[in-house]
Amino acid sequence: MSENIVASDSFEEYLISHPFLGKPENLYNPMNYIMQLGGKRMRPKLLLLAYQSICQELNKDVYQLALSIETFHNFSLLHDDIMDNAPIRRGKKTVHEEWNTATAILAGDNLLIKCYDLILKTGLPNKAELLNEFTIMATQVCEGQQMDMNLPTQELITDEEYLQMIRLKTAVLPACALKMGALAANADLERADVFYDFGLNLGMAFQLQDDYLDTFGSSEETGKQEGGDIIENKRTLLYLHALRTLTGGDKEELQYWFNSKPEDSNNKIERVRALFKQAESDIFLTDLKADFERHALENIEIACDGSSNKAHILALFDLLKTRKA
Amino acid sequence: MSENIVASDSFEEYLISHPFLGKPENLYNPMNYIMQLGGKRMRPKLLLLAYQSICQELNKDVYQLALSIETFHNFSLLHDDIMDNAPIRRGKKTVHEEWNTATAILAGDNLLIKCYDLILKTGLPNKAELLNEFTIMATQVCEGQQMDMNLPTQELITDEEYLQMIRLKTAVLPACALKMGALAANADLERADVFYDFGLNLGMAFQLQDDYLDTFGSSEETGKQEGGDIIENKRTLLYLHALRTLTGGDKEELQYWFNSKPEDSNNKIERVRALFKQAESDIFLTDLKADFERHALENIEIACDGSSNKAHILALFDLLKTRKA
Repeated sequence: MSENIVASDSFEEYLISHPFLGKPENLYNPMNYIMQLGGKRMRPKLLLLAYQSICQELNKDVYQLALSIETFHNFSLLHDDIMDNAPIRRGKKTVHEEWNTATAILAGDNLLIKCYDLILKTGLPNKAELLNEFTIMATQVCEGQQMDMNLPTQELITDEEYLQMIRLKTAVLPACALKMGALAANADLERADVFYDFGLNLGMAFQLQDDYLDTFGSSEETGKQEGGDIIENKRTLLYLHALRTLTGGDKEELQYWFNSKPEDSNNKIERVRALFKQAESDIFLTDLKADFERHALENIEIACDGSSNKAHILALFDLLKTRKA
Repeated sequence: MSENIVASDSFEEYLISHPFLGKPENLYNPMNYIMQLGGKRMRPKLLLLAYQSICQELNKDVYQLALSIETFHNFSLLHDDIMDNAPIRRGKKTVHEEWNTATAILAGDNLLIKCYDLILKTGLPNKAELLNEFTIMATQVCEGQQMDMNLPTQELITDEEYLQMIRLKTAVLPACALKMGALAANADLERADVFYDFGLNLGMAFQLQDDYLDTFGSSEETGKQEGGDIIENKRTLLYLHALRTLTGGDKEELQYWFNSKPEDSNNKIERVRALFKQAESDIFLTDLKADFERHALENIEIACDGSSNKAHILALFDLLKTRKA
C-alpha cells in the first residue's frame, strides 16, 4: 500500500526527468518553464490512482499518459493567462510576461500537440479510445472557457448555465483523467464511466469550494488576493443566488456593488460578504458542494469495489474536500 | 480521368457542408468563419490527389482526412494573424479583429483539437500512423513559426537556417498532406515517403517563389502590398545573398535601407531591387527554386509510376510553378 503512494508521489520526479526536447530553445524553454512551476499535480495523480486501483503495478506507459493530462492542464493555464492578462502564476512571471504573447501562444499550441504525441507514443493497445476521450474533453474545456468569458456581458445567467460552465471548464478534466487511468488498466467501459462520474462530481465540488474560498477565505488561508471575485464583479453562483433571494434595498445595494469598482475594495468586500450571508448564499453553496461530494463518494464505492486503493483515493478526496487553499 | 478532377474540386463543397457544430456560438462561429474565407485549398487537394493516384475512388474517410489538413492550415493562419497583428485576411477582417484576441486564441485551439477529432473519426485502419505523421508535422510548424519570429533579432543567419525555417513553417504541411493521402490509400511506407519528399520540394519551391514575387512582383500580379518584405526589412534569402555578395558602398547602402523604415517606401523598394539584381540574388533564388522543382518532378515520376493521376498532379504542379500570385 505504501508502495503505491510512493509510486503516485513519484509523478513529480517523472515530470522533471521528462522535459520536452526540441528547438528553437525559446519555444521549448517556456513549455518546460510552465510545466515545472509546480502545483499539486492533482489530475495526473488521479489518473495514476485510478489505474492503480485496478492494476496495482504502475508502468512507463501510464506515467506518460499522466504526463499528457498534466501537459493539457498547463496548456490551458498558459493560454488562459494570456486571455486574462495575468502577470503572475504560482509566484513567478507568466509565460507571456517572461517571453511575449506570440511565443506564449505558440508554446501553448505545441504543448497541446505534445499531449497527443505522449498518448500516441504509449504502447497501450486501446490508444484510439484514449485519444477519443482526451479529444472530447479538450474541446469541452475550450467551450467552458468561452462560456466563462461570455458571463460578464450575458443578460441572464441561470444556475444551470453557471454549473455547466464550471463542469466544462474545470470538472471534465479530472473526470477524463480518472477514466483514462481506468481504461489504461483495461477496465470495461461501465466501470471507467463510474470513475469519470467520480471525477466530474469531485471537480464540481472542488470548483464550488474554490468559489467559496475566493469570497469567504482569508488571503492567509488561500495565498490569493482576498475577495478577488467580488472585486472583479464576477457573477458566481453566490451572486446569482443572492440576487434572486434579496429584495428591496438589499438587492439594490448588491447590484450597486456589482456595478462599481471602488479603488479601496475593503468596504465593498465586507458589505458583499454580509449580503451573501444575509441571503444565506453561503449555505446554498455549501449544500450544493456537499451534494456533489456525496455523489462522488457513492461513485468511489462502486468504482473501487474491493480495491485496496480505495483508501488512497479517499485520502486524496479528503485532502481536496478540506483544503483551504 | 475527368471524374477524378471533379472529385478533388468538390472538396470546397465538402468543406462548406461540414461546418464545425457546437456551443457557445461565439466559439464556433469564428472557427467556421476562417474555414470559409476561401483560398485555393491546395493542401487538402494534394492529399486527395495522392490518394487518387493510388486508389482512384475517393470516399468519405479521405475527404475527412483532407478536411483535417485544411483545418490545421486554418488553425495556423488564425494564430499567426494574432502574432503578426494582421488586420485583414483574404479581404476580410481577421478573427481577432472581428471578435477579439481571447476568442481568437480559443477558436484556434479548438480548430487544432478538431483536426485530431476528424482523423480519429475516420474509419481508416492505420489511424495511429496517420495521427503520428500529423503530430510530427504539427510540432514542426510551431517550431518553424518560432524560428521565423526569431529572425529579426538573430545575429547571424545562414542560408541553411533560413531554408530550415521555411521547410518547417511551410513545406512540411503539403508534404504531410501528400504522405497522409498515400498512407490512407494503403501505400507502403517507402512510396508514401516519396510523396512526402515531393510535397517538401514542392513546398520549398512554392515558398521561394513567394519570396521572389513579394520582392519583384507587382501588386497587380500578386494582389498584395508591393515590396512588403523590403518595407518590413525581412531578412529573406535575397537579402542574405546580396549582403554577402555586395561590397563597399553597395553593401553599405543595402545595410542602410535594411536599418530604416522611410515613410515613402517607393525609393527604398526601387533601390533594394536594383541592389538585389546587381548582386544577382534574383538569379540565385530562381536557380535554387528550380533545383527544388527538379527534385519534385523526380519524386512525382517515382511516386506516380504508371498512375493515370500523374497528369493531375503535374497539372497542379505547373499551376503552382507558374503562379504569379
